[in-house]
Amino acid sequence: MNSIVECVPNFSEGRRAEVVDEIVAAMLGAGVKLLGREMDADHNRSVITFAGVPNAVEDAAFRGIAKASQLIDLDAHRGEHPRIGATDVVPFVPVRGVSMDECVAMARRLGERVARELNIPVYLYERAATRPERRDLAYIRRGEYEALKQEIASNPDRAPDFGPARIGKAGATVIGARPYLIAFNVNLATSDLKIAKEIASVIREKNGGLKAVKALGFMLREKNIAQVSMNLTDFNVTGILTAFSAVQTEAQKRGVAVLESELIGLVPLEALTQVAAQALKLPALKAEQVVETKLFGE
Amino acid sequence: MNSIVECVPNFSEGRRAEVVDEIVAAMLGAGVKLLGREMDADHNRSVITFAGVPNAVEDAAFRGIAKASQLIDLDAHRGEHPRIGATDVVPFVPVRGVSMDECVAMARRLGERVARELNIPVYLYERAATRPERRDLAYIRRGEYEALKQEIASNPDRAPDFGPARIGKAGATVIGARPYLIAFNVNLATSDLKIAKEIASVIREKNGGLKAVKALGFMLREKNIAQVSMNLTDFNVTGILTAFSAVQTEAQKRGVAVLESELIGLVPLEALTQVAAQALKLPALKAEQVVETKLFGE
Repeated sequence: MNSIVECVPNFSEGRRAEVVDEIVAAMLGAGVKLLGREMDADHNRSVITFAGVPNAVEDAAFRGIAKASQLIDLDAHRGEHPRIGATDVVPFVPVRGVSMDECVAMARRLGERVARELNIPVYLYERAATRPERRDLAYIRRGEYEALKQEIASNPDRAPDFGPARIGKAGATVIGARPYLIAFNVNLATSDLKIAKEIASVIREKNGGLKAVKALGFMLREKNIAQVSMNLTDFNVTGILTAFSAVQTEAQKRGVAVLESELIGLVPLEALTQVAAQALKLPALKAEQVVETKLFGE
Repeated sequence: MNSIVECVPNFSEGRRAEVVDEIVAAMLGAGVKLLGREMDADHNRSVITFAGVPNAVEDAAFRGIAKASQLIDLDAHRGEHPRIGATDVVPFVPVRGVSMDECVAMARRLGERVARELNIPVYLYERAATRPERRDLAYIRRGEYEALKQEIASNPDRAPDFGPARIGKAGATVIGARPYLIAFNVNLATSDLKIAKEIASVIREKNGGLKAVKALGFMLREKNIAQVSMNLTDFNVTGILTAFSAVQTEAQKRGVAVLESELIGLVPLEALTQVAAQALKLPALKAEQVVETKLFGE
């Protein structure tokens, strides 16, 4: 079965479409496919999602970083979103047939190459981090490009994992590996926001709830219903159906029904197979049993 | 999104592997992929499963029928399984992005071509049938090759849909279209076969139960547990989770728990997406939301 890695580089350009076009064009090629492309003018940032076989994805990420370093000047960049580099952050995400360790190895190899060939300082983050505090992107990015520029040479806490302790117009790049993130919302048959907030508070990991689940309560103003909005940060730890059932149980305790749920963006087949396996008491179900996997994935 | 049709031709050869090899080799080519190959020596029959884009699948089926007509002689064929032709039956099955009507059109076009180019009588069956009684394969195949040979010229009920009302050593071929068949079993936490038989009897269409569901109760001797074994003949009418839930409900009424379930063979992604959509109250979920579909299926 083909291994699939997703990569979601964030570039510090959200206004000049032709620049983003050029970066995307540099990344595409055999073995990778574009899955998404978002530009935000206020953030002055774009988020590109692509996926494919690991080697091709790693090479594509390198080409994107190289191209962005030619086209984006951090000294001239203004935007609402925190950033430290032309290519700000590059996570590798296992989708299928690839371990987290392999994605960590990709991140380290790419980081070393970016430093060597492009002379850009690289910080490893999330599962690829070399220091516990660097798991946290916000920590690495504190003070943004402007602060990093001042401190990188003098502050040992700012020493990059690869590359020079000095920074050019392309800034620094954060590279790492993390699990696939699933954005999953459950709409409640109530207009009482307090109930959604309570449920979110009970089920989220931070408060001792489900592991690898972040949750917030929101109001959907147009529909006048309350929503529990979740990020499942590792569906192999807490899957979609487990999260859904937890919300449903908590809602029932409060006399509220679940209206429906929604998945934002794409999900890996494994995450859906897992839902079906759980719902059908079918532990043996695997993605390989899907006709389409046999047809396209092997 | 790529359209996918599956084709499951049955050939009257289950002993000479080299003959089956040659037929399979004739069918494979650009746009089609082999999914399964079963030979049964007692039945003296092989079942080949392949799938791909509609045009390629239709052409592949023709090449298989042509090759089988050269290599298999029905006058010399003996086997336990009923048959009327070297290529006995050829169903087209919509998997994705293809309607049943399109598969019916494929069956008719292929039937006309087989008659014209190979001079083989063709009967249309299931959803492609031109007479109600011909929906039923067993009806078309009554008396097998030997009876058909005697009656085809004289009995108007035996008149083929395409081709000559006379039969050669390649016999006649039945071509048609049907929904994807899912073989799905639910194992019960009991060794009482009677309970499995009762449940099967309640849920199957024949007794007024779930539409497009065939069900039988079986004993799994090795595990000493009873099983409700189902064929879901159209998952768009009754899906896997609906069937599972019906068995579970009936089991609960009888004080018996469900141990686990099993899916035999491959299932279309749509059938799994449907399970997840139902389990998560997520009506908007579509196969297009799966990363792999974006990567391979478009």
